[in-house]
Amino acid sequence: MTAPSRWNTAILVFDGVEVLDFAGPYEVFSRVRTVPGMESRRTDDSAPFRVFTVAREARTIRATGGLQITPDFGFADAPSVDLVVVPGGFGTRAVVEDAETLEWVRRVASTASLTTSVCTGAAVLARAGLLAGKRATTHFGSYDWLASLDASITVVRGVRFVDDGVVTSAGVAAGIDMAFEIVARRCGAEVAAETARYIEYPWPRA
Amino acid sequence: MTAPSRWNTAILVFDGVEVLDFAGPYEVFSRVRTVPGMESRRTDDSAPFRVFTVAREARTIRATGGLQITPDFGFADAPSVDLVVVPGGFGTRAVVEDAETLEWVRRVASTASLTTSVCTGAAVLARAGLLAGKRATTHFGSYDWLASLDASITVVRGVRFVDDGVVTSAGVAAGIDMAFEIVARRCGAEVAAETARYIEYPWPRA
Repeated sequence: MTAPSRWNTAILVFDGVEVLDFAGPYEVFSRVRTVPGMESRRTDDSAPFRVFTVAREARTIRATGGLQITPDFGFADAPSVDLVVVPGGFGTRAVVEDAETLEWVRRVASTASLTTSVCTGAAVLARAGLLAGKRATTHFGSYDWLASLDASITVVRGVRFVDDGVVTSAGVAAGIDMAFEIVARRCGAEVAAETARYIEYPWPRA
Repeated sequence: MTAPSRWNTAILVFDGVEVLDFAGPYEVFSRVRTVPGMESRRTDDSAPFRVFTVAREARTIRATGGLQITPDFGFADAPSVDLVVVPGGFGTRAVVEDAETLEWVRRVASTASLTTSVCTGAAVLARAGLLAGKRATTHFGSYDWLASLDASITVVRGVRFVDDGVVTSAGVAAGIDMAFEIVARRCGAEVAAETARYIEYPWPRA
């Protein structure tokens, strides 16, 4: 399979973002290579995704548990985005009230090839109006919250992820499965499975 | 079960550390609560692990893929450590030659209750002399490298982790399974399973 053009992959980070919500997709997308093996991972030559973090401002944020992340870009200077990942975490309670972040998400989603969320990142997409009339999922503890944000959303329970144009995943670790699914669609199941073997993650699930 | 005393949990970070190697155990240990549910995660009141990152110097490092992490402490000012996690990644090739880091790992391991590694972090433990005469595992691509660092190590292949006093795990995602195993031993299987449900990670494996 010919390597697809590289996708600029923006992962939103903010104070109170759940660590594995962003780090799972970050790991998967940043380690994919269309050339298999260990050595190909030492360069970006066959990398189909260029992954970077974006925050409202380019200052260090604290994820859940206190992990300090310095974003690569602020909204003002972020490159164009092909794939956007909106993670969740307790911090989303503030993000859904932040007009600037919602505006950025809307703007990026309007031109990106694919918009995705992990966990309660779905609430951010909902508040940005991006899940109107769609099926979507989120962390099992936030099904009702998601439904309350936009009555036109059909909240799907008990699944790892939902693709209704916008791809939403269940809680935390489910973002890893969603990322592999996106890799499989874009690069083929063989490339996704080889990357899963590389990071010793059991995918596809039995 | 009575909550155990809180364990100071140091996760080593360095340039070229693999993202999920450190972020997986970070997520698990930092989200454990002996009180179940969503709300207990909003505070550290029932947290059995206090998780922080440590690097040689307290300057921002770049993990694989470029993720920028600002460590909480440098070696000089890190608190006492009960549990140490040494992750892997391409950066370990430099770390195993870094006398200062090897000395810190040795020093911390000599007083910690438990010393662990993820992926090629085992190579760092080996070079620090901590795996002498022990069974250990690492990323499947580095079995031979680990064996070459200390001929007295019995390299165990095809397992998620090995406990021979020092706990070593297989590649990348296997660090998550290792973390849950440690939580189960310290806090009971019920606390570990409830945390796994919270982060929607399938543990224990079928």
